Amino acid sequence: MPSKKVYMDYNATTPLRAEVKAAMIEDFEIYGNASSMHESGRYAHARVEGARAAAADLIGASPETIIFTSGGSESNNTVFQTMRRLASGPDGVPLREGRAEIITTAIEHPCVLNSAEYLKSLGFTVHFLSVDGDGKINIEELRSLVSKNTLLVSVMMANNEIGTVQDIRAVSEIAKAAGAWVHTDAVQAAGKIPVDVDALGVDYLTLSAHKIYGPKGIGALYVRKGAPLFPLIHGGHQEEGFRAGTYNNTGILGFGLAAELAKRDLAEYGRAMLSLRTKLLEGFLEKVPNIKINGHPVDVLPNTLNVSFPGAEGEAILLSLDIMGIEASTGSACASGSLDPSHVLMATGVGPELAHGSIRFSMGWGTTEEDIQYVIDTVPPIISRLRAMSTVKS
Amino acid sequence: MPSKKVYMDYNATTPLRAEVKAAMIEDFEIYGNASSMHESGRYAHARVEGARAAAADLIGASPETIIFTSGGSESNNTVFQTMRRLASGPDGVPLREGRAEIITTAIEHPCVLNSAEYLKSLGFTVHFLSVDGDGKINIEELRSLVSKNTLLVSVMMANNEIGTVQDIRAVSEIAKAAGAWVHTDAVQAAGKIPVDVDALGVDYLTLSAHKIYGPKGIGALYVRKGAPLFPLIHGGHQEEGFRAGTYNNTGILGFGLAAELAKRDLAEYGRAMLSLRTKLLEGFLEKVPNIKINGHPVDVLPNTLNVSFPGAEGEAILLSLDIMGIEASTGSACASGSLDPSHVLMATGVGPELAHGSIRFSMGWGTTEEDIQYVIDTVPPIISRLRAMSTVKS
Repeated sequence: MPSKKVYMDYNATTPLRAEVKAAMIEDFEIYGNASSMHESGRYAHARVEGARAAAADLIGASPETIIFTSGGSESNNTVFQTMRRLASGPDGVPLREGRAEIITTAIEHPCVLNSAEYLKSLGFTVHFLSVDGDGKINIEELRSLVSKNTLLVSVMMANNEIGTVQDIRAVSEIAKAAGAWVHTDAVQAAGKIPVDVDALGVDYLTLSAHKIYGPKGIGALYVRKGAPLFPLIHGGHQEEGFRAGTYNNTGILGFGLAAELAKRDLAEYGRAMLSLRTKLLEGFLEKVPNIKINGHPVDVLPNTLNVSFPGAEGEAILLSLDIMGIEASTGSACASGSLDPSHVLMATGVGPELAHGSIRFSMGWGTTEEDIQYVIDTVPPIISRLRAMSTVKS
Repeated sequence: MPSKKVYMDYNATTPLRAEVKAAMIEDFEIYGNASSMHESGRYAHARVEGARAAAADLIGASPETIIFTSGGSESNNTVFQTMRRLASGPDGVPLREGRAEIITTAIEHPCVLNSAEYLKSLGFTVHFLSVDGDGKINIEELRSLVSKNTLLVSVMMANNEIGTVQDIRAVSEIAKAAGAWVHTDAVQAAGKIPVDVDALGVDYLTLSAHKIYGPKGIGALYVRKGAPLFPLIHGGHQEEGFRAGTYNNTGILGFGLAAELAKRDLAEYGRAMLSLRTKLLEGFLEKVPNIKINGHPVDVLPNTLNVSFPGAEGEAILLSLDIMGIEASTGSACASGSLDPSHVLMATGVGPELAHGSIRFSMGWGTTEEDIQYVIDTVPPIISRLRAMSTVKS
């Protein structure tokens, strides 16, 4: 078994950047509660505010529009429960009159899908926009569904599994024209492609630190001035009362620095990733017969390559790759453990069999040309062997 | 200005223990998503499960009853929103028949009080138990309020501001006899006094890592087998679907180790804190005329001393202490920034003026006998000066 390890799962999570790690280790010495009045507290508070400015800057926002949360899932849930409370009377009854419709897509992260399903169970009407074979939503379908009853349109900016990037600006224009609120989950987009809240025209935008070489357990929600917000977590006065709980100083500091570096290196990162992705794509196309590339050919994250290998089973491929030191995934880590085929691939029209035989390779700062060559060399014999076994079995 | 720094605000937050910090720094090297199938993911997962066992062990629970959250506020909110959903029909309408009453206390942490107020705004009946001059609830008042309509009784185990410890076992017995669910916020109790879920008889119990020398941004909720639970954060399958979001591996690991050390050192910590508290108490009683000690004289956290200084104003005392390098607080950090007098002290019958002149000194591992002596020497002249100024003004 090779001692080599090639991590190709950066969309699941990224390691801390060296600078972020160093800053967090230093911050561990500072233990004031950022809400305390004394010197330790004030110092911790100042560092939190510096990080807020950096997180805001990554998305072209101003600091007061940023609320720190425990991560992308909490941020997305906060938007949906705000809609629940907006549409509810004082008794929690969804208003039958007025806006009680939500429009989202069939390929969102589970935390959006399940939040939408929860609202549906409460009486909301929820539309899940379909996508085409490349994972793109149909803007005309959105236009036909949006109405004066639409409360929220939530469309993810870049898909975590296939990397397809949506035209969020077009989404916002249609939604705003009808007076609906607009949210985008930009967890996978941030740090990989430009994200600017004003260019996108969104009211809410979700970020996560651990996808951009920051720590786990910390994320943010951008809330445009004037957009409604209710706390998911009631309690202390932190975050202007919109998110209670002692500040996770060290996590926030790490997030801020990761955001600052992500912004600084955005162009370089995009170029480096696209070069690696292109090499991997071309290697697969050359060496593995009969494969299907998932995701949009152009509007796609530069670091994400999702490939279907007909005749081979995804978990068997993953295990074989793992033995060879290559770490990839069949879909999102948040959906792993499930035996269902990827809901994202199914939505693109890939059948269940092919969806089961699909692998996401996602690259990052640690990925080298040699790693890509190793993957290109290692994958073809694995697929051949699995396809041969599959033929024997059937 | 002395370069001395005496941190007397351990109830607001604690520094990381050296062992915890070292383990977290090492864990920063491990970046697998604990939900991923590959080796990095499996390794991260194993570490999460080890920490879960340690957190469970601190409170005499089994690992499968522990759900990791982003902290005490989220844990407490999770219990209250579970009650919201329990009492609601499919349309979110609170059931007018059946159980829609909550009993809690007037001295809970803001995250419980505000969660209770939210349920009240939805139509729940909420009773806030009064406390006596020592901060103890009246068990007979609880007995008279509990009925077949009671859905939840939530009483904090130890108060964060005055340290008073409640008889949670008696609370549980009364609540369970009426078929209500029982929750206790044990954030301030854990690590300071014995906490055992079976001895207490509770269904839900809240923990926070950063109060026991672990990291900020991580906490836990104990949920007894059979007790209902709805996710506050919908999404991935993490925590059996009860708490979505990528595992905060490093935070969880730090929490687990902090819990393990807290359990190991519980008796020693209690003795050490009580000795420091007694020295501080005796010093104040000897050196500062006309003071009032808040909290129960016996059933009190060994590290917490809350003192009212009539004729002096709390923020002025704090600022004077801060200049002298002593960091304490007027109440909970989560309520700071507010000009209202402490709701806890007000509930004990201390008037607003005296409540405004009260300081919480909370001690921890870093507190030395010399620190205590420094505080005893420093406080009396500050109080004398402030009292003199106050007399001049009036």
